[in-house]
Amino acid sequence: MEAFSDGVLAIIITIMILEIKVPVSSEFISLKPLLPIVLSYVLSFIYIGIYWNNHHHMMHTLKHVTGDILWANLHLLFWLSLIPFVTGWIGENEFAKAPMVLYGIILLMAAIAYFILQRRIIRNQGTGSILSKAIGKDVKGKISPVLYLAAIGLCWISTWISGILYVIVAVMWIVPDKRIEVIFRSEEFK
Amino acid sequence: MEAFSDGVLAIIITIMILEIKVPVSSEFISLKPLLPIVLSYVLSFIYIGIYWNNHHHMMHTLKHVTGDILWANLHLLFWLSLIPFVTGWIGENEFAKAPMVLYGIILLMAAIAYFILQRRIIRNQGTGSILSKAIGKDVKGKISPVLYLAAIGLCWISTWISGILYVIVAVMWIVPDKRIEVIFRSEEFK
Amino acid sequence: MEAFSDGVLAIIITIMILEIKVPVSSEFISLKPLLPIVLSYVLSFIYIGIYWNNHHHMMHTLKHVTGDILWANLHLLFWLSLIPFVTGWIGENEFAKAPMVLYGIILLMAAIAYFILQRRIIRNQGTGSILSKAIGKDVKGKISPVLYLAAIGLCWISTWISGILYVIVAVMWIVPDKRIEVIFRSEEFK
Amino acid sequence: MEAFSDGVLAIIITIMILEIKVPVSSEFISLKPLLPIVLSYVLSFIYIGIYWNNHHHMMHTLKHVTGDILWANLHLLFWLSLIPFVTGWIGENEFAKAPMVLYGIILLMAAIAYFILQRRIIRNQGTGSILSKAIGKDVKGKISPVLYLAAIGLCWISTWISGILYVIVAVMWIVPDKRIEVIFRSEEFK
Repeated sequence: MEAFSDGVLAIIITIMILEIKVPVSSEFISLKPLLPIVLSYVLSFIYIGIYWNNHHHMMHTLKHVTGDILWANLHLLFWLSLIPFVTGWIGENEFAKAPMVLYGIILLMAAIAYFILQRRIIRNQGTGSILSKAIGKDVKGKISPVLYLAAIGLCWISTWISGILYVIVAVMWIVPDKRIEVIFRSEEFK
Repeated sequence: MEAFSDGVLAIIITIMILEIKVPVSSEFISLKPLLPIVLSYVLSFIYIGIYWNNHHHMMHTLKHVTGDILWANLHLLFWLSLIPFVTGWIGENEFAKAPMVLYGIILLMAAIAYFILQRRIIRNQGTGSILSKAIGKDVKGKISPVLYLAAIGLCWISTWISGILYVIVAVMWIVPDKRIEVIFRSEEFK
Repeated sequence: MEAFSDGVLAIIITIMILEIKVPVSSEFISLKPLLPIVLSYVLSFIYIGIYWNNHHHMMHTLKHVTGDILWANLHLLFWLSLIPFVTGWIGENEFAKAPMVLYGIILLMAAIAYFILQRRIIRNQGTGSILSKAIGKDVKGKISPVLYLAAIGLCWISTWISGILYVIVAVMWIVPDKRIEVIFRSEEFK
Repeated sequence: MEAFSDGVLAIIITIMILEIKVPVSSEFISLKPLLPIVLSYVLSFIYIGIYWNNHHHMMHTLKHVTGDILWANLHLLFWLSLIPFVTGWIGENEFAKAPMVLYGIILLMAAIAYFILQRRIIRNQGTGSILSKAIGKDVKGKISPVLYLAAIGLCWISTWISGILYVIVAVMWIVPDKRIEVIFRSEEFK
């Protein structure tokens, strides 16, 4: 299951580059309209990177795969697969309202899908679940949807604030979580 | 063989998103014409998910790979590789007759290709084949082609009914098959 | 090395489908101009399948990877990566002369690249090379380039004959080579 | 982590072919304008090949993955993911100044990202790091950024010289480094 998920995430993260169309002119100035596209690409690249990173860790705690975990996983991949589309829409419209709202909705749905997948795996592992220990109170997992919702709502006031919120959530996830790494390592997690 | 098949299925499921073209306008209303494209994407995403799921289980029962199994596998991947094309055609023509018929034909050919691959693997495993035990009477495998044929014929009456039939087949396969999972698990299948 | 090559071959075989553009019309008749594109897709799909199949077997005989084998492998992947391009060119020009010639040239270069890779691996394995035993006199490997050259030359007379030659070479490789499979299996090759 | 990186590199190296658009005409002459595109494709194919090759070796020296290594790796993949875009820009503008400068900048950033990743892994392996031994003084790694910088500057004088410099760096990396292979092999590196 991990090979397939890794493949899908690798493709999602890479085909986004196809949204950055080669400019017709050969002048430096022709790169300027590409700036919002590149910025939205960078943000989505980081988001997919975060999901890949966390997904990868989570999958390694998995003992055996059941049908409901498979479908919870595909459900997550579905929402993530929409990110290249919405990223292209944002980039080509310079962070306009509708694309920014849709971006938040897709991130929210992906977060919910990730949460469902996580619950299924923990339930499957029973008491003493290593994943359950690793995520602890899962503060980040609980704050993120709230911030996405806030960002969606704030699009009607200022898409800048929404954009900053999306960046904050990403940064929050990149900052390493020493405690979790320690648990994973102590459990002979490679 | 599984790495290659997983790769092809991962690419098929992901490049379908390239059919959802980024709208020029930045208004919410510009998403409306994308609705049939997204709907057909969801259905095809589920179908590829089902094939990946079943294919994955089947491959794990495989002891050694022979030339005819390799080609039966490529034959299946060929028909599945046409799904992004026909999905795009359906989406851009709002479930018109010809695309809906072609969708049924490709699903039918994929089902036949899957059946052939299954027969080859069972023959290769000889008596007491774990795959043979796992699929049992293979009721779903036998009903699906009949429903595809019905859906193809009904396109001339109502593409709605055909669409509903395609959804029914997908749902039929998603619903977990407890008995099979038990067999796989009892055989120390990971 | 195999994971990377499998990935590249999986992508090559799948992105060819992107050359089959979704028709604007929703009528069956709109599929007719796609026929040559689909035919050239089928042929190239089979060729990539053959290369994947043989490559896969060859890689399994490999004990350790050296720099020159890595580059011989990338050289092969380079020529195969051009197949989607030339397949699209053939399909959109209904088997015209120039695309058919280029198809032959690329197949010829891929065959040469495959031959070089094979020599490097055999040399690396030293005397008693399992690969050397498996390919024996390598009759197919020696006939194929001759047939490609003939097909290229015959394009100036009839692209039909060339096309038939390309099909013949493909069929020649699909037909299983019982003797090789026996050798691989007897060597505990999985 | 390697499966994901291999997947991303395999996709990057392969989607570049999508930049080589199928010509409308079926004449040989219609291939002529494609020549700069093919040339830039060949160069970038080799660069990605070099990165894959070195990355692959480096990853095999890795004992356990930490958060900072994961992100250093994604950082490298980010810069490499921009190569198909800039390659297409170069090819369609026949080696004009701006695209050639951007090519150098992206190669430079990728080299820096690779250097950072390397430092993180060495630090992680502690004293007696196999990677540290394998790269030695890392002469190539230190010369390359200097040559990229030179090539970027020289674009204002002659893009030909810059192009030749990019080729020289690539050739420098392809030429096998016997000493390194010996170290890797002596450490039972497979």
